[in-house]
Amino acid sequence: MSATEDTEALTALCARLARIPTATLSSQLIKRGLKATYIGGARRLIGTDAICGPAFTVRFIPGREDRTVPESYAWPGALPAAMDAAPPGSVVVIDANGHRGAGTFGDIFAGRLKVRQVRGIVCDGAARDLPGLERVGLPVWADGTCAPPSIGGLTFAGWGDPIGCGGAAVYPGDIIVADRDGALVVPVAVAGEIAAPAEEQDRFETWVQARVEEGRPLVGLYPADAGTLAEYRNHQEAR
Amino acid sequence: MSATEDTEALTALCARLARIPTATLSSQLIKRGLKATYIGGARRLIGTDAICGPAFTVRFIPGREDRTVPESYAWPGALPAAMDAAPPGSVVVIDANGHRGAGTFGDIFAGRLKVRQVRGIVCDGAARDLPGLERVGLPVWADGTCAPPSIGGLTFAGWGDPIGCGGAAVYPGDIIVADRDGALVVPVAVAGEIAAPAEEQDRFETWVQARVEEGRPLVGLYPADAGTLAEYRNHQEAR
Amino acid sequence: MSATEDTEALTALCARLARIPTATLSSQLIKRGLKATYIGGARRLIGTDAICGPAFTVRFIPGREDRTVPESYAWPGALPAAMDAAPPGSVVVIDANGHRGAGTFGDIFAGRLKVRQVRGIVCDGAARDLPGLERVGLPVWADGTCAPPSIGGLTFAGWGDPIGCGGAAVYPGDIIVADRDGALVVPVAVAGEIAAPAEEQDRFETWVQARVEEGRPLVGLYPADAGTLAEYRNHQEAR
Amino acid sequence: MSATEDTEALTALCARLARIPTATLSSQLIKRGLKATYIGGARRLIGTDAICGPAFTVRFIPGREDRTVPESYAWPGALPAAMDAAPPGSVVVIDANGHRGAGTFGDIFAGRLKVRQVRGIVCDGAARDLPGLERVGLPVWADGTCAPPSIGGLTFAGWGDPIGCGGAAVYPGDIIVADRDGALVVPVAVAGEIAAPAEEQDRFETWVQARVEEGRPLVGLYPADAGTLAEYRNHQEAR
Amino acid sequence: MSATEDTEALTALCARLARIPTATLSSQLIKRGLKATYIGGARRLIGTDAICGPAFTVRFIPGREDRTVPESYAWPGALPAAMDAAPPGSVVVIDANGHRGAGTFGDIFAGRLKVRQVRGIVCDGAARDLPGLERVGLPVWADGTCAPPSIGGLTFAGWGDPIGCGGAAVYPGDIIVADRDGALVVPVAVAGEIAAPAEEQDRFETWVQARVEEGRPLVGLYPADAGTLAEYRNHQEAR
Amino acid sequence: MSATEDTEALTALCARLARIPTATLSSQLIKRGLKATYIGGARRLIGTDAICGPAFTVRFIPGREDRTVPESYAWPGALPAAMDAAPPGSVVVIDANGHRGAGTFGDIFAGRLKVRQVRGIVCDGAARDLPGLERVGLPVWADGTCAPPSIGGLTFAGWGDPIGCGGAAVYPGDIIVADRDGALVVPVAVAGEIAAPAEEQDRFETWVQARVEEGRPLVGLYPADAGTLAEYRNHQEAR
Repeated sequence: MSATEDTEALTALCARLARIPTATLSSQLIKRGLKATYIGGARRLIGTDAICGPAFTVRFIPGREDRTVPESYAWPGALPAAMDAAPPGSVVVIDANGHRGAGTFGDIFAGRLKVRQVRGIVCDGAARDLPGLERVGLPVWADGTCAPPSIGGLTFAGWGDPIGCGGAAVYPGDIIVADRDGALVVPVAVAGEIAAPAEEQDRFETWVQARVEEGRPLVGLYPADAGTLAEYRNHQEAR
Repeated sequence: MSATEDTEALTALCARLARIPTATLSSQLIKRGLKATYIGGARRLIGTDAICGPAFTVRFIPGREDRTVPESYAWPGALPAAMDAAPPGSVVVIDANGHRGAGTFGDIFAGRLKVRQVRGIVCDGAARDLPGLERVGLPVWADGTCAPPSIGGLTFAGWGDPIGCGGAAVYPGDIIVADRDGALVVPVAVAGEIAAPAEEQDRFETWVQARVEEGRPLVGLYPADAGTLAEYRNHQEAR
Repeated sequence: MSATEDTEALTALCARLARIPTATLSSQLIKRGLKATYIGGARRLIGTDAICGPAFTVRFIPGREDRTVPESYAWPGALPAAMDAAPPGSVVVIDANGHRGAGTFGDIFAGRLKVRQVRGIVCDGAARDLPGLERVGLPVWADGTCAPPSIGGLTFAGWGDPIGCGGAAVYPGDIIVADRDGALVVPVAVAGEIAAPAEEQDRFETWVQARVEEGRPLVGLYPADAGTLAEYRNHQEAR
Repeated sequence: MSATEDTEALTALCARLARIPTATLSSQLIKRGLKATYIGGARRLIGTDAICGPAFTVRFIPGREDRTVPESYAWPGALPAAMDAAPPGSVVVIDANGHRGAGTFGDIFAGRLKVRQVRGIVCDGAARDLPGLERVGLPVWADGTCAPPSIGGLTFAGWGDPIGCGGAAVYPGDIIVADRDGALVVPVAVAGEIAAPAEEQDRFETWVQARVEEGRPLVGLYPADAGTLAEYRNHQEAR
Repeated sequence: MSATEDTEALTALCARLARIPTATLSSQLIKRGLKATYIGGARRLIGTDAICGPAFTVRFIPGREDRTVPESYAWPGALPAAMDAAPPGSVVVIDANGHRGAGTFGDIFAGRLKVRQVRGIVCDGAARDLPGLERVGLPVWADGTCAPPSIGGLTFAGWGDPIGCGGAAVYPGDIIVADRDGALVVPVAVAGEIAAPAEEQDRFETWVQARVEEGRPLVGLYPADAGTLAEYRNHQEAR
Repeated sequence: MSATEDTEALTALCARLARIPTATLSSQLIKRGLKATYIGGARRLIGTDAICGPAFTVRFIPGREDRTVPESYAWPGALPAAMDAAPPGSVVVIDANGHRGAGTFGDIFAGRLKVRQVRGIVCDGAARDLPGLERVGLPVWADGTCAPPSIGGLTFAGWGDPIGCGGAAVYPGDIIVADRDGALVVPVAVAGEIAAPAEEQDRFETWVQARVEEGRPLVGLYPADAGTLAEYRNHQEAR
């Protein structure tokens, strides 16, 4: 397959995954033994739709006074260069060391990422300048907002590395899906194989929900026993 | 008193307590020496009205890989059986060990509980599938949302036991009241005796608030000294 | 300068600072070596506008059963006296020891502070009686809500002392600014000198944001290199 | 097999496991997919030897003032009854909710357990009366010591239930092994099958350590590549 | 009573309380409704004997860069003045905000306190210069050691105020008792009345421990039922 | 200066710094504005002397099930390769994400590092196999011990990167000093300049301590006022 075809396939896959709830995707990952894939602390602050794209990782370490000086933002390879390097279609995932009192991005960085057609930002720490972020409108998942910039407590340590974010390992290129329940890491090796079963799970659970509303008990229905499965298959075939 | 009368009395008491703010009820419990009755972390995610009902307890312990397998949901006496067993009028209280990255319930379980006329769910951990929970509409108090299901980090351990929830002990049958300030445990032995003084406290505080708005200082007014109490009694008698 | 002139100057300064985002003010403080000035945990619960005023400090310590009795509210110099003593134009800053399960104020105390023309309340713990607080309408920043009153877990320890609040030191008279990003302590000694550079920073960042939207990379733009600075100055002069 | 034979087999297995480091046993559990088996926080306070035995579980929930009264120790089925019920050869595992300021046992309870030939106590909270515990000499793993008794913050909730302890699930009868590295839960279903491979791992690692001391690099040695494995097998056969 | 007699009575009381385990004293406080009296985190670092004396309180708040400058130690009324003011026979109790990375005292301050005949130091944060502290030999309870001085993260805020220390309220003059189980606050109002019952409790528990060693079950023995109490009284009278 | 001379100078500097308490070095760093240099959580587990050497950094991120498989230790560039790469004279500093339930090294890795003449290991998480580590004898600072290996909760992410460790930023080549008070990062740029003033501070503090023991108050003595400084200089000259 050519590189262009690869990219198109990835774009199509991401569009498909973005339509599946992270709750469903997480269940599919767990069926494959992958439990530690949820990014804790990152809740939706900006945006209304789910997003999906490959991770572009940014890493911070604790601040140290010889590095957390205002001029550090202008050092070669500093945080602005990372923002400029984020590729279109990606999701920027920021390891802020879980720091809630130092904002790793605000409206200007978010504005730049939006211009670069980044799909959104996921961060286990704080965002800053919430009104400005709302004006920009780039989707954001973070653990609240704060006033101080990143040098208020963190040192930028680079981009494109494996990181920890909210208790989950994130490797560059892992597929990130984020919706109202939060943000999930889908290792790229399984991203392709879970789309179809996840969609099927969603169809099945819609059917289950209708049965629940009719007053059916959960035992035997969900998870489905053999009788329920047969009933569901009949229903599917009848459609 | 017959069992039916008992049930009717309890239903009436719960309806009465649901109209009293948890802030007021907590003050009344503290007057009786009961401080450790607030369920920390559980904030309102779904619903607009206060709820009140006897606790139906559900308990989780930390997940272990030989138990947190997808098929465990179908084991006899597993979580679906607990949901089926929740009695009408009760409040389901879930001890999720404070785990914020494993959702102990989503829209299907909430849908089942709604059909069973449960009044709401209170949980010291996370809910999942927030859009689905909103469609169902059953009132929910929880410590945020996440994507993974319970087996992402927890093992179901049974129902109907005394539990800890958000730092409070909850015994089956304790009265749970939940509103915008959060969720409160009212031990059943005192539930009956605090309704009247709590209602009176609310009336008094409404009168105090009016005095405050007139510019009266707090000292002597709230708490009330003898003069203020006399003034309040006169006001009450004059009504 | 006379005391009246002093007060008027402070009032004017506070009005000016209230129009500057805390994100910008924090950057200016950090330029002056002041990083530990953000009040962690206090997020906006009530209000829509930013506030600014000198701090009136209130201090709590952990509760102890011989002090956390309902009658303690009526002891001489207790919490109601503190509320009565808060001066007009001030911001009441409460060191609640970070306790999220004991509400240090509710609608009656907030109502009293509103009558006293206090600008708002900032607390690193919980508020209580959220519907009542909304009726009063005094701006509030706190770490959530709860049902229990302060004696549910805290002992009032006095007012007018230096305190810690959300990890920041707050001295009486420090300038507090609070907006959607949270609450910031501006030591009074630097409050005057940062207003102008902060306003200039805001103008510059508005210009930067426009350049970002035109597609300009961040490197060289933000922070600005010599060429960007010259371009900005030309733009400013051309206005 | 008769019940007596069962008991003897279990006793022999426990004696065997007690001679294997928990570090080695944990590696064997992880090879079988069992990671969440380490009891966090419980470090050795009393004793010098490793212990191993089936778990006898004791459960606490947060304290509530109507239950945490001194007379509660005399209620039927209270904590003293649990201590009296602990079987010889067992390890008492206490879920103290991780509370470090309420001691769930002291010298008298430990003395009773010693008389009952319990092998030791493992607790994710605090012990109390350290000098008394040293006099008794029963091995103890706990997260420090404190002065208050359990009713200082906890309510006894029963024994013989599945519990969480230090982040691990513990079921009655699970095999507990504790040594200087801490305490480990070995699910009974795998306890028998890991003894032999764990012993072999220990032998292999002793051989590896000798190679390391000779200056051999780790890559290829540990984990062993094919050449190293052959060398080790030759060495074993030559003995 | 004269002031001298008062002081002598207090000294005698402290000597008496120092001989009673904090575990026993805590039980007596709980019988009087006082649970929140244990200083969490402060474990014995230096010393071998228990200490008891009235609290001399020292308070820190979070560090802020305009205050945490090396020269601040020389400001009037700074930390050295607090050390000079600690009275003979007192226990210095330091509210370090639970900060474990900023040492509020080292060997020089401890040396000064020893010269002043202070009985010991209790701190909910870190000590520093452990070898120096050992040379000085003044008893110390703290939550570990660290290298940085207090200005590495804290600001001194004064002495002689009510403080929180390890989750307990401490008022100047409260009686502090510290032993191997940790440090306990005995409110001065009850200090006198608990000595005798605590001593009696110790005698009773010594007798209980002997019965336990003879193999007696705990139920009925501890807590004692009527028969056990009679037996104990006979035993006491027979001595 | 030649590379050999550089190395010899560094070795000599490290030997010199190892003789200065970290408490003193931290004070010198703070005088130069460097506060965030203490590695929290890492306390001495093995060894009796202080160590000093340039940092060799090792980084872990949260574990993920597709990476935390036993065979991962044999992947190219995995943890054993990092151990083999640690240079003689260095201090291995491990960012274990603060995880206390997954041991990043045990006796075999420590044995290899000892053979490589590494000076010691500093880790913000747990060590494992404490008896084995004692046999090896390489100095270790860590936040306790545990049974599980690193793959029990962590994924190895590489070596030679800037890391966070116990809340401090550590860059490869930073000078690490560790003693009984814990472990300190000395940025290489200031390592040379602080040795002499730190030694002088130690001499001065020894003189101060003698004055304290003579009964001198701290105010005026420590920090020294002009008179004290003159007295100290006289004393120094008289030696």
